[in-house]
Amino acid sequence: MRLLTQLLAPKSVAHAHCDLPCGVYDPAQARIEAESIKGIDEKYAQNSDPEFRARALFIKEQRSELVKHHLWVLWTDYFKPPHFEKYPQLHQLFNDATKLAGAGGTKGSTDPAKADELLLKIDDIGKIFWETKQG
Amino acid sequence: MRLLTQLLAPKSVAHAHCDLPCGVYDPAQARIEAESIKGIDEKYAQNSDPEFRARALFIKEQRSELVKHHLWVLWTDYFKPPHFEKYPQLHQLFNDATKLAGAGGTKGSTDPAKADELLLKIDDIGKIFWETKQG
Amino acid sequence: MRLLTQLLAPKSVAHAHCDLPCGVYDPAQARIEAESIKGIDEKYAQNSDPEFRARALFIKEQRSELVKHHLWVLWTDYFKPPHFEKYPQLHQLFNDATKLAGAGGTKGSTDPAKADELLLKIDDIGKIFWETKQG
Amino acid sequence: MRLLTQLLAPKSVAHAHCDLPCGVYDPAQARIEAESIKGIDEKYAQNSDPEFRARALFIKEQRSELVKHHLWVLWTDYFKPPHFEKYPQLHQLFNDATKLAGAGGTKGSTDPAKADELLLKIDDIGKIFWETKQG
Amino acid sequence: MRLLTQLLAPKSVAHAHCDLPCGVYDPAQARIEAESIKGIDEKYAQNSDPEFRARALFIKEQRSELVKHHLWVLWTDYFKPPHFEKYPQLHQLFNDATKLAGAGGTKGSTDPAKADELLLKIDDIGKIFWETKQG
Amino acid sequence: MRLLTQLLAPKSVAHAHCDLPCGVYDPAQARIEAESIKGIDEKYAQNSDPEFRARALFIKEQRSELVKHHLWVLWTDYFKPPHFEKYPQLHQLFNDATKLAGAGGTKGSTDPAKADELLLKIDDIGKIFWETKQG
Repeated sequence: MRLLTQLLAPKSVAHAHCDLPCGVYDPAQARIEAESIKGIDEKYAQNSDPEFRARALFIKEQRSELVKHHLWVLWTDYFKPPHFEKYPQLHQLFNDATKLAGAGGTKGSTDPAKADELLLKIDDIGKIFWETKQG
Repeated sequence: MRLLTQLLAPKSVAHAHCDLPCGVYDPAQARIEAESIKGIDEKYAQNSDPEFRARALFIKEQRSELVKHHLWVLWTDYFKPPHFEKYPQLHQLFNDATKLAGAGGTKGSTDPAKADELLLKIDDIGKIFWETKQG
Repeated sequence: MRLLTQLLAPKSVAHAHCDLPCGVYDPAQARIEAESIKGIDEKYAQNSDPEFRARALFIKEQRSELVKHHLWVLWTDYFKPPHFEKYPQLHQLFNDATKLAGAGGTKGSTDPAKADELLLKIDDIGKIFWETKQG
Repeated sequence: MRLLTQLLAPKSVAHAHCDLPCGVYDPAQARIEAESIKGIDEKYAQNSDPEFRARALFIKEQRSELVKHHLWVLWTDYFKPPHFEKYPQLHQLFNDATKLAGAGGTKGSTDPAKADELLLKIDDIGKIFWETKQG
Repeated sequence: MRLLTQLLAPKSVAHAHCDLPCGVYDPAQARIEAESIKGIDEKYAQNSDPEFRARALFIKEQRSELVKHHLWVLWTDYFKPPHFEKYPQLHQLFNDATKLAGAGGTKGSTDPAKADELLLKIDDIGKIFWETKQG
Repeated sequence: MRLLTQLLAPKSVAHAHCDLPCGVYDPAQARIEAESIKGIDEKYAQNSDPEFRARALFIKEQRSELVKHHLWVLWTDYFKPPHFEKYPQLHQLFNDATKLAGAGGTKGSTDPAKADELLLKIDDIGKIFWETKQG
């Protein structure tokens, strides 16, 4: 989906995030961290060494926090009133996604399926994001 | 004033915020940072020294970011689906409040009136927050 | 409880902390983090899941560090020479309190009683703080 | 180039960066920050308001630091001895790129052309990165 | 000079600071940041370019904060009750030194003389520190 | 020992690191963190308490990250093209040293021997650094 979106977009596709604002936003920032969480979960399942697992758990905590942060930035800084009117599900989508990166989601679980749930939500957000960029 | 409050309150009233979750949340965290922003704005208006003003601007930037962070944490970690059902305005309220701490709000302005707008929004959130704690 | 407090207080009661200085300080910042530590300790005692416990331990480490930071800021930025003259115990009180949030205190222990010791010290500091605000 | 790479890769292409390591790396992280710097430079040129410019300067400083960080992570954590053998220019390329995000580059300049130089270097690194992923 | 020192010292002389505690402490951490502040002040005086000066001011702010942090760590984590008994001036010395890295010191001033005052206080602390290590 | 050193050195010998640049650099920053890692490893070996060990592991993770950061800063900000010409091994030395502070080094291991390897690499870098300061 995202790949398709990028094909349709002839101009540079890096998008982000500072609150100047610079006007550059990209859901890829949240997605990369969520991919990392999934990778951590998979390695965690395959390695029962307690030192490795302790490291995995707190690195996953940091990565989950980064997912939350990148999503919050999109929700507050990128999306504007007309977007929320056009996509009334956006608020709930972001709330669900950030919760999925928290204690009831990837922070509290080492199940890669939980990371997949988060990735799907991020892709739902990404789909809307890219639609608004083309509008 | 606050000492009096504490005397009247036999049990501690501090509430916060980690994503264990510890179960402790308190809108005061966002409010304290917003009060700080207002204080910075007032001192900025009274002092035209360029070095002081440069310092004021980037300290205000940090404080505004902290307001956003504390509010995002409440929105994602404290408030649950039943709250959003009971208070359908909550999503928009948080989106407005965090925007008010951003480029179009206290980050981009040195007007104390902008900080007051932010404080009012935080108080709107606080009012709902404390209702849910008493429910 | 707090809502009531706020109703009774016509003027804002948030106080903090940046080193502009903005003139806003509030021991509540340290207290909220210490309350969080106590909450973590209690949840830790009730949950023997190793993943939960690992998360609890490093979140508690961060919260303890925040307690230390907020107290250091009060000690260095808010309190001035006349305060130290009037309250000669202040230096030791802050040193004790910050040590109680360190390796020999809430960082190194999961006993809620240790968090209570820290909370009491913060309240001792808070009591003096509010006296100086009323002076 | 990157778009082409992604077309060749049927499966998800998010790659990053934690030092577990999770095995997920992606030069897009550095690129997004560099795009942001360019955006900031362009807005800086168009806006002579001193408050806006002060904000632009320290946000650009942070973004430049993030570029350096993301590149350093790739250089130390992703690239291995066989890569450095196959691409003997890699060390210098990373040193040049990180310098371009420093005092002599995007930190010290507000010229968008400097951000473009940085973007080109990141693309040079990205080209090699994606070659190693396909090897 | 330092190389010579290292040649003369067969065993390592680095000392620091984590709150495990690891048992490694070194006032050099605070001193290096204070030296940096002095360097910044000198460059600030010689360069009236507003962009350079803006960067200098917020980098100096960060460096001053680091000085405070490193000193606070020594005061709380390294020094123990017997030290405070033997050196009753220690509390005030640390309070003065951290204030000198704050708004009334190197944060609020670009005068290298202020950085020198800070350096002298750090050396006073360092002198006591090394005496306690030899005791 | 160090006190003696300081007595012998009439002029300050602290050197660091901000990217103004202030012109102050010192490999001691990386070395102090690496010494801390070694201290942590030694305490880890002597203490099988799971809470202590969890704390040791994530504090060691942070310290290792700091080592990497301080080394990256030296590599990018301090060393210039003429240095790399004169010391062609510098790039590899820094890449090896930062890898030694990562997952395959002190992050992933609790063996003090690994910390010693890192310390030796830092000393190799320090030796070159001080030669360039005398040149």
